[in-house]
Amino acid sequence: MRVLGIDCGTEITGYGIVDADETSRIPQLICIGFGAIRLPKHKTLPERLLQVREELHAALEAWHPDVVAIEEVFYSVNAKSALKLGQVRGVALLAVAEMGLPVAEYAPLKIKSSVVGYGLAAKEQVQFMVARLLGLADPPQPADAADALAISICHIHTAQTLSIQERGR
Amino acid sequence: MRVLGIDCGTEITGYGIVDADETSRIPQLICIGFGAIRLPKHKTLPERLLQVREELHAALEAWHPDVVAIEEVFYSVNAKSALKLGQVRGVALLAVAEMGLPVAEYAPLKIKSSVVGYGLAAKEQVQFMVARLLGLADPPQPADAADALAISICHIHTAQTLSIQERGR
Repeated sequence: MRVLGIDCGTEITGYGIVDADETSRIPQLICIGFGAIRLPKHKTLPERLLQVREELHAALEAWHPDVVAIEEVFYSVNAKSALKLGQVRGVALLAVAEMGLPVAEYAPLKIKSSVVGYGLAAKEQVQFMVARLLGLADPPQPADAADALAISICHIHTAQTLSIQERGR
Repeated sequence: MRVLGIDCGTEITGYGIVDADETSRIPQLICIGFGAIRLPKHKTLPERLLQVREELHAALEAWHPDVVAIEEVFYSVNAKSALKLGQVRGVALLAVAEMGLPVAEYAPLKIKSSVVGYGLAAKEQVQFMVARLLGLADPPQPADAADALAISICHIHTAQTLSIQERGR
């Protein structure tokens, strides 16, 4: 299974692609690639939204994931930030849907506990564990790409748990 | 000048197309068409976003506006609603940008005062005045389409004011 995780942001949207080797009993995670869509301030909102769609389509076409995973939005942000984030998130979901790919959503607590084993872990702990789980020397940069990889790992761990539960029935 | 106004909503997104006859000194407004994109609850969010893009593209291709006008978002809504609205609004802006059309944004107060002459007018007053200004027997339905026509009228009135101001220099 190949998962592309997306971490949406108003300025930077990270993405990260992880393969799960399903032949081994012990989960084997392979980092295939990661990157970030940086939206320049001088661009208008419509131009930035076009860029999000274009760069996500390029990533989806380059890496051919089986599924896309995205973070559920944390509602403690204010309404103005939520609207801005929503605009980017809507276009990201559209770009994925245009490719006919399924999308799985995970709550921030679930992502952290899936990667660090602790739902209230600090951002740095998540980035450290992403590097460790993927066998990388350093946490991927920018942090948004590491967060996107964490979302991919969360999907793989969840899918594996579900699969084990199903086999156990 | 032909304007397509969009009134974004999580469940219904209205649109309305108005022509301004620029040859006459007294502003002549002609209602060309209006409609609403109704997003069914049984659809997933990605499916709904695909529908928004598809129906807006169909409207833009059918009516060939010169410019698109949209409401600036009112931040008194809560963060959860703002995120949901943002997702639809982001896709609407993207759909317009894909067609290479310019987008003008207007604050709700500006739209109401441009149509009713009073920024704090009730929704019903706006709908009544939209029908009156466009020479329609009844306010267009659904209300979201009437609101979208109000946004188009606001753009035409603003453009006419700007044009008069420029000639006056």
